[in-house]
Amino acid sequence: MCAAAKLEHLIDIKSLSTEEISAIAERALEIKNMDRGAKPLSLAGKHAAMIFFENSTRTYFSFEMALNKLGASVYNFETSKSSLSKGEDFFDTVNNLAAIGFDACIIRTSEEGLIKRTIEEQKNGRKFFKKIALINAGEGTSAHPTQALLDFVTIKEKFKNLNGLNLAIVGDIRHSRVAKSNIELLNRFGIKIKCVAPSYFKDESVKNVEWCENMEKAFENADIVMALRIQKERIQDIIEFEDYIKNYQITEENLPKNAILMHPGPVNRDIEVTSALLDSKRGKTILEQANNGVFARMAVLEMFLGENRGYNV
Amino acid sequence: MCAAAKLEHLIDIKSLSTEEISAIAERALEIKNMDRGAKPLSLAGKHAAMIFFENSTRTYFSFEMALNKLGASVYNFETSKSSLSKGEDFFDTVNNLAAIGFDACIIRTSEEGLIKRTIEEQKNGRKFFKKIALINAGEGTSAHPTQALLDFVTIKEKFKNLNGLNLAIVGDIRHSRVAKSNIELLNRFGIKIKCVAPSYFKDESVKNVEWCENMEKAFENADIVMALRIQKERIQDIIEFEDYIKNYQITEENLPKNAILMHPGPVNRDIEVTSALLDSKRGKTILEQANNGVFARMAVLEMFLGENRGYNV
Amino acid sequence: MCAAAKLEHLIDIKSLSTEEISAIAERALEIKNMDRGAKPLSLAGKHAAMIFFENSTRTYFSFEMALNKLGASVYNFETSKSSLSKGEDFFDTVNNLAAIGFDACIIRTSEEGLIKRTIEEQKNGRKFFKKIALINAGEGTSAHPTQALLDFVTIKEKFKNLNGLNLAIVGDIRHSRVAKSNIELLNRFGIKIKCVAPSYFKDESVKNVEWCENMEKAFENADIVMALRIQKERIQDIIEFEDYIKNYQITEENLPKNAILMHPGPVNRDIEVTSALLDSKRGKTILEQANNGVFARMAVLEMFLGENRGYNV
Repeated sequence: MCAAAKLEHLIDIKSLSTEEISAIAERALEIKNMDRGAKPLSLAGKHAAMIFFENSTRTYFSFEMALNKLGASVYNFETSKSSLSKGEDFFDTVNNLAAIGFDACIIRTSEEGLIKRTIEEQKNGRKFFKKIALINAGEGTSAHPTQALLDFVTIKEKFKNLNGLNLAIVGDIRHSRVAKSNIELLNRFGIKIKCVAPSYFKDESVKNVEWCENMEKAFENADIVMALRIQKERIQDIIEFEDYIKNYQITEENLPKNAILMHPGPVNRDIEVTSALLDSKRGKTILEQANNGVFARMAVLEMFLGENRGYNV
Repeated sequence: MCAAAKLEHLIDIKSLSTEEISAIAERALEIKNMDRGAKPLSLAGKHAAMIFFENSTRTYFSFEMALNKLGASVYNFETSKSSLSKGEDFFDTVNNLAAIGFDACIIRTSEEGLIKRTIEEQKNGRKFFKKIALINAGEGTSAHPTQALLDFVTIKEKFKNLNGLNLAIVGDIRHSRVAKSNIELLNRFGIKIKCVAPSYFKDESVKNVEWCENMEKAFENADIVMALRIQKERIQDIIEFEDYIKNYQITEENLPKNAILMHPGPVNRDIEVTSALLDSKRGKTILEQANNGVFARMAVLEMFLGENRGYNV
Repeated sequence: MCAAAKLEHLIDIKSLSTEEISAIAERALEIKNMDRGAKPLSLAGKHAAMIFFENSTRTYFSFEMALNKLGASVYNFETSKSSLSKGEDFFDTVNNLAAIGFDACIIRTSEEGLIKRTIEEQKNGRKFFKKIALINAGEGTSAHPTQALLDFVTIKEKFKNLNGLNLAIVGDIRHSRVAKSNIELLNRFGIKIKCVAPSYFKDESVKNVEWCENMEKAFENADIVMALRIQKERIQDIIEFEDYIKNYQITEENLPKNAILMHPGPVNRDIEVTSALLDSKRGKTILEQANNGVFARMAVLEMFLGENRGYNV
């Protein structure tokens, strides 16, 4: 069976089959374990535009490095200097990039549903000049599929069997597209998810998770603890830092003995996690996530842009 | 005959012979029709600085992709962060780039005549450290030679014989360097040009064109209709939009049956051209222009930067 | 003897042995004199982040071209858009870059000692995820080692024997990291250094130089005259331009007959040096410095990033 036919755009985790997710993770680990010189430049001659409406060094560089390692050419689309800032509609922007010769747009935006809406413009009779892949690099507060994929790769590296694992997610679930994409993905692999957060970070619309009253309950039997970033620069007003630190900060003491600690980064030191824990051996998984990000994105890019799109699964 | 000797800088259309223009267009179409893998990296080891004082995603990416496809290295000269913003004169800036090792500067500026003046500083005894090509990517309101060249490539693709074709140019001719470079170029190939515009967009100093009172007259026997972009962000005050739309908007109805529709982009939907027309089959030429832009610029770059500068014509 | 073991970061001139400095300069000249096509891509597969907190076209492009010529991938870390601007500490930023897969950070900053402090965080138990080289591209008012190295290369090209040469440094020594790194480096090779500056540009803490009362005394027997840039945009208030020009401007008349003229650029024409002198034959050394910058940096990057770090010296 070949999934090639439908793999054109990475919209969100929902747009991927469970088999495709597994294939991406396996390929990511395969790439990671290759010799450095052995990596094939499977995207040589491809051209990708990075369209980042939101700043992000980490995700940006991770995609840029993934593209470089695959031999593609990378272009920085400066959103503030583009025709978009003069009112051009996004479909026209993408379509002009297709016409110029681009094979992919890597898109990061705060605008919920932008990618899907752009693709669906084709139903209104508008046509892309040629095939161009739209790849979600973080959208609104609901979708960050490549972050979930790299977290999945990291978990697969640490645990042989995912089915029945217990995951505790701590912190700002409401504003976190990382949390939401992870919940959607990890549920499919039989991971049980508990959430714990102060009231202002709760989001009751999130399904398939158990909300806990406090960290103690959330951490019972936890194999994985996932802290989330507090986006201080955006939501400073609603956070009671003293209270947050007292009730939700992860420390060397409260982190379950056998659990691994994850965080999408950048960490606010001594808020979500103590410096002591971060700088200890147990803090290293967070850097491994960043490390796996490049390999996960290489696997995604191969799948969506490679000559043989999709995998036999 | 070899034109190599004098091809050092692309200043404007005037600086090119008719044979050189033809050679560029033929080479652009040759490159376009090559197999993807067959394209030679004829500029490997060359270094080009993109010096854009004016924003432009389309022209910027088109040049960047052309350079990438030819194997050159591309550098983004951030004009706002450079020594220029500290008052360094432009000759010194270019000369330092030459000293560092650059082979070309791709320049976009609102400053009329900047490129020519910089080159002419050599007459005052100042010397470039080594050969460096200055390539005009849009200058002031009078010159945008590579846009005219890509439009020429697009017209050549559509029509076997250019001599005697009728072109109607609609809209903001006054502020349009695209129009002016096109008029200069296309006149040389025997294309008859009519212009139509509201009074605030007329420019009586433009020669070798026939000014028409209304679209009807301009569109008589037209083979090509070229709409121009209204630079809304710059000249908002002087435009009467309702009037413009009523008298100058191009629609499925008023576009002559056998004419092709061109526009340098980005189009202001439902101002210069209706959305219905843009999204129809007849709107596709505009994207083909964007597509040809890369090939035209590859041909230009080869001619000005390739080891064998110029062509035998 | 192999110096490989300790060559991890380029902190300042002090962090280099005299043998290592000589090895870099010799390698730079070797690279410069290679055939263009013969240059080995010794850093293919390496990834370097350019972290420039201070603007600089010249140093930026010089490093970028050096990396390109060596086959490395270059990434522009936009400091204003990064997590740093959200308060992430610099060690964490560097460590995340290491985790993503970077091999080097090229750093330019006004913050005195930032690079050394970051490296020394490792003594506090924090660990880099993997080896990553920090390369100083200008720091505070005290260190700009690659500028001193490229000046050294330029001097070596001009003079067979450095021991006993006389160097006069003119101008803003106080704020100049170029001057300070040069003094540190050139003293080691037996060059005698005289300094001359108005009171507001003097820095009595600078050692191993002779302060002169006026240019006449400083220029006695000078083999090299090094002018420094007045950073007009930063220190406008304290400069008395008329006085400066009268007493410290270098002209065709006062430049000793056999001396070469150096300046780190960009030159303020008709302030530090007259236009007439700059545009004469004798002004060309300044462009040769820019030219040597790429080769000096290639040698530095090879030494710090090449598979065989360090040289047998």
